[in-house]
Amino acid sequence: MRLKAIIRYDGTFFSGYQVQPNGRTVQGVMEKVLMKMHKGNHVRVTASGRTDQGVHAVGQVIHFDTELEIPPENWLRALNTMLPDDVEVISITDVPENFHARYDVSEKEYRYYILNAKEKDLFRRHYTHFVKEKLDLGAMSEASQHFLGSHDFSSFCAANSKVKGDKVREITDIAVDQDGENMIVRVKGTGFLYNMVRIIVGTMIEIGLGKRESEEITEIIAAQDRSKAGKTAPPQGLYLWEVNYNKKS
Amino acid sequence: MRLKAIIRYDGTFFSGYQVQPNGRTVQGVMEKVLMKMHKGNHVRVTASGRTDQGVHAVGQVIHFDTELEIPPENWLRALNTMLPDDVEVISITDVPENFHARYDVSEKEYRYYILNAKEKDLFRRHYTHFVKEKLDLGAMSEASQHFLGSHDFSSFCAANSKVKGDKVREITDIAVDQDGENMIVRVKGTGFLYNMVRIIVGTMIEIGLGKRESEEITEIIAAQDRSKAGKTAPPQGLYLWEVNYNKKS
Repeated sequence: MRLKAIIRYDGTFFSGYQVQPNGRTVQGVMEKVLMKMHKGNHVRVTASGRTDQGVHAVGQVIHFDTELEIPPENWLRALNTMLPDDVEVISITDVPENFHARYDVSEKEYRYYILNAKEKDLFRRHYTHFVKEKLDLGAMSEASQHFLGSHDFSSFCAANSKVKGDKVREITDIAVDQDGENMIVRVKGTGFLYNMVRIIVGTMIEIGLGKRESEEITEIIAAQDRSKAGKTAPPQGLYLWEVNYNKKS
Repeated sequence: MRLKAIIRYDGTFFSGYQVQPNGRTVQGVMEKVLMKMHKGNHVRVTASGRTDQGVHAVGQVIHFDTELEIPPENWLRALNTMLPDDVEVISITDVPENFHARYDVSEKEYRYYILNAKEKDLFRRHYTHFVKEKLDLGAMSEASQHFLGSHDFSSFCAANSKVKGDKVREITDIAVDQDGENMIVRVKGTGFLYNMVRIIVGTMIEIGLGKRESEEITEIIAAQDRSKAGKTAPPQGLYLWEVNYNKKS
């Protein structure tokens, strides 16, 4: 039986999502709990994609296979009882055997939280990116619209990325909103390159600060050169918000 | 020269304010930084009072003596550069040699944050106390008014407290407010017993849940018996908000 779970995690104390030799990871924590439930047998967990160290998730999706005969609602309780307090399973459902958490993704949404205030907030330092200088919402909004559609996003892909194949990705929706001192950038797309959202946001922040013009986005995209875009915004503001799938699941 | 500093800290990863043999403490971290600045000489830091493990501070006050001739604004920068990211100095000023951060306190304000919502918030688990069942704001507000004035607060003092002398304390102001899913209890007083605010809030929550009547407060206070009051609310919702002093400082 294949199960699909929506999980939420606080990325602060994880060395990212994906298992690695050293460091606590979300995948590692999930697989450890599943191993206990499966009498020591390893259960491989597959996610919609990785998230980096410090990046959070509100709606990450994973799948795994099991032969345990447990109703989904009991799975939810069992996992949440055994998981540490920085990972939470939101829902769990059985899906067809051919459902795949990564290959079947139709669209993903990320949100990036910026605290644009005079003073930083100690209690939110792991959950938002603090920018002291006033950001120009109008300029950032205008800039954001240049990202819409299909483009080669090489300029917005980490230089050390190991992505094979082309770097054309499609942004289907992007918006910047302000709620008091909180600024939120929402980005939806059918696929994302490594650090793509953080480089988009980092570049938009430079536009919001008046260091660049919003029209530059078109040129930066056309350049297909990472050095033309802005800095990579830090991980703590980023949330993997939602993952959508084709009809199968 | 005696300096007074207002400090802010995230209590999550501290074993409380006060130095102890094992465990990271706010006082320990402050004294370590000051020792570096004073070429290895120990500088004792005195606070307005302790806070427990997991309790936060927005306006804790400390004092210490120094012979270094550094202008206050440089002190601020130097300390904040050397302090870890969960402690922050908000202001630093020189005060008369007879100023004392603990003895001269005239009034303290604590705030307690409750998240009264259907779902807990993973990202605020260290910063608010989650209560799922709907709380009755009116009943809690009514209850709060019974605490006002001078009372023997033995019923609201941790049973293992080592307080000598009487347990009469004065609450000068208390209020409960709601802002969407956030409920905030504000308590001002001239002095507090060990765990006093957390037991007051824990008892008020039981009233908000309909497990007790708001009028019971008077009887609970009169009983002078810890077992008559409610549970101690957990530390993560509590913030030492402000400390006020007599004219001297």
